[in-house]
Amino acid sequence: MSAVIDLTRDLIRRRSVTPDDAGCLPLIAARLERLGFHIEHLRFGDVDNLWATHGTEEPVLAFLGHTDVVPPGPEERWRFPPFEPTEHDGMLYGRGTADMKGSVAAMVVALERFVTAHPQHSGTVGLLLTSDEEGVALHGVREVVEHFARSGQRIDACVVGEPSAKETLGDLIRVGRRGSLSGTLTVKGVQGHVAYPDKALNPIHRFAPALAALVAERWDDGNADFPPTSFQVSNIHAGTGANNVIPGELVALINFRFSTASTADGLRERTEAILRAHDVAFDLDWHLSGHPFLAPPGGRLRRITAEVCRELCGIDPEESTGGGTSDGRFIAPMGAEVIELGPVNATIHKVDECVSLADLERLPDLYEAICDRMLRQ
Amino acid sequence: MSAVIDLTRDLIRRRSVTPDDAGCLPLIAARLERLGFHIEHLRFGDVDNLWATHGTEEPVLAFLGHTDVVPPGPEERWRFPPFEPTEHDGMLYGRGTADMKGSVAAMVVALERFVTAHPQHSGTVGLLLTSDEEGVALHGVREVVEHFARSGQRIDACVVGEPSAKETLGDLIRVGRRGSLSGTLTVKGVQGHVAYPDKALNPIHRFAPALAALVAERWDDGNADFPPTSFQVSNIHAGTGANNVIPGELVALINFRFSTASTADGLRERTEAILRAHDVAFDLDWHLSGHPFLAPPGGRLRRITAEVCRELCGIDPEESTGGGTSDGRFIAPMGAEVIELGPVNATIHKVDECVSLADLERLPDLYEAICDRMLRQ
Ligand SMILES: [Zn+2]
Ligand SMILES: [Zn+2]
Repeated sequence: MSAVIDLTRDLIRRRSVTPDDAGCLPLIAARLERLGFHIEHLRFGDVDNLWATHGTEEPVLAFLGHTDVVPPGPEERWRFPPFEPTEHDGMLYGRGTADMKGSVAAMVVALERFVTAHPQHSGTVGLLLTSDEEGVALHGVREVVEHFARSGQRIDACVVGEPSAKETLGDLIRVGRRGSLSGTLTVKGVQGHVAYPDKALNPIHRFAPALAALVAERWDDGNADFPPTSFQVSNIHAGTGANNVIPGELVALINFRFSTASTADGLRERTEAILRAHDVAFDLDWHLSGHPFLAPPGGRLRRITAEVCRELCGIDPEESTGGGTSDGRFIAPMGAEVIELGPVNATIHKVDECVSLADLERLPDLYEAICDRMLRQ
Repeated sequence: MSAVIDLTRDLIRRRSVTPDDAGCLPLIAARLERLGFHIEHLRFGDVDNLWATHGTEEPVLAFLGHTDVVPPGPEERWRFPPFEPTEHDGMLYGRGTADMKGSVAAMVVALERFVTAHPQHSGTVGLLLTSDEEGVALHGVREVVEHFARSGQRIDACVVGEPSAKETLGDLIRVGRRGSLSGTLTVKGVQGHVAYPDKALNPIHRFAPALAALVAERWDDGNADFPPTSFQVSNIHAGTGANNVIPGELVALINFRFSTASTADGLRERTEAILRAHDVAFDLDWHLSGHPFLAPPGGRLRRITAEVCRELCGIDPEESTGGGTSDGRFIAPMGAEVIELGPVNATIHKVDECVSLADLERLPDLYEAICDRMLRQ
């Protein structure tokens, strides 16, 4: 039997639909405690988080994961029941196999092996787990990091277990993520009757040239590590449904996915300047989900992770900053070098989520090798 | 007592909220039938219409009105109960006093006097009443005119009783109306995740430059009788509410109020050409509510109506084509010269709708004088 597959199956059986932990964290805490890890249960709001550490010195190498999963959707559409782990044709099926109970199990097994083999390793290894990554993510890693700021806990390097691979384990490591900046834009007009446009001020008309300018704007050219910043209007709404009424306001939701070539402040200022230049009367409520982060090209963790993929998987990994956001956005501002390495992400958040049994079997080797090279004596 | 005020009060008491006639039409039909009018009840769908004529020759002078009213809204906000006609301070209060039971009563009284004084008048005088003007207006004058086309009934000149005056009876006659052309525009895109804009096609972005061009377009310069054509986007909707999803389509409602300097076909073609020029993939469903119409500056009815205002009210009336649409849009395409003359419109569709008792008292004189001058022997 395989330790990583056994633990993955055990976690899959727990219906930990976000933010319910369903007992995953205590199970893991008990295992690591037996091996001498220091255990901190961090509960914020209705969310459980776990911080388990071995060692007290610097540097601190943390592994970051989540035990919550997205809802399975209609279970009858699954080939196998989503919370009954099922092996079939070289794959392990079940909700969370790829995102990311497989990675979490691999991290636990790797840490167990590492501290058993090197009880006197240098620095500290830690495992940070949350059960609020797939949901609103307010009481998860965001609050853990605020707690760390108060307690003086630092993290120097962090491996996130999000599924990063395209086709096979080790073919892609994520070396950063774009920032995400959202805004709720309210354009103000004056309501009226379409037969009397002179007595109204149509916010759709007032906004149109500004919208065209925002859409045409090239915000930056990206850089070696990031594609150019992308601007999207995800929602636009104005009007009561009646075709003879000029609406009084328009509401649009906008979102930037931005590279390190721009700053959140810069994008805010430029957006508002374009609106003002077009004489738009507006309110704009901004929400910054996360700054962009990047493991520097010469960074130790980034170099070692790529090395481990080459040596253990025989693949020269693509080093990418693509995709959405991850909890790495909270860790990077601590000054940590953050990389993401996990299994193939093709089936995440879908029915019939699955992971290759062979990949899953090798994943603890990768994580253990990273510990070994980061914290060898 | 006054015949016109008595009849107006009688009509106000009937709760004829569109399209319910509440007995208004049979009451009027019975009165006119007693004076020798030929009565045709035209029922289409759930709507009653009345066509009462005196004479069989040409030309045909028709008076056009409606007995339905808009709902009163919260009755406790009215100074006097909306369906209990109340005289106060020189005004008659009640739902429909101005729009347009006062005009309807004045038309009935004017026609009674005219045919009594001139039983052998030339041509034909007719009264066309509907109880579906304020609602969807599908089974009202629209269908009556289709019926007339089949039966060979013509109308040469038509006085619409819609409240036209600004401050006092006779200060404004409506000599035409703009056309109204609406469209439901669906812009097609490809839905996706905001983190992967390359895999999606944002219809808001695709539409933005075309929208700016449509808003900036000068459709025509108007002409001596009409202001320039006005284009309004009354509604625009795209997006599911989620800020991380690029929507798959955008829907906008557009409306032209257009002068005789443009045609509906021309506006349709130019709109679609602008969309195509900006490479927008779209569906566009058009609905023509009414072509523009105009009583020509030298037209007999227009000249006589202005003359009557000057002589009986002592005012040189403004001759306007402003405002929304009216049922005149269905009569004008029959080849009829259409003008609109009625009381002050300041309170229509509002609480405390009212009409000046003095104006109401004089309105039958105006209508009778028009009959007299149009159809004198
Ligand atoms: Zn995940
Ligand atoms: Zn009316």
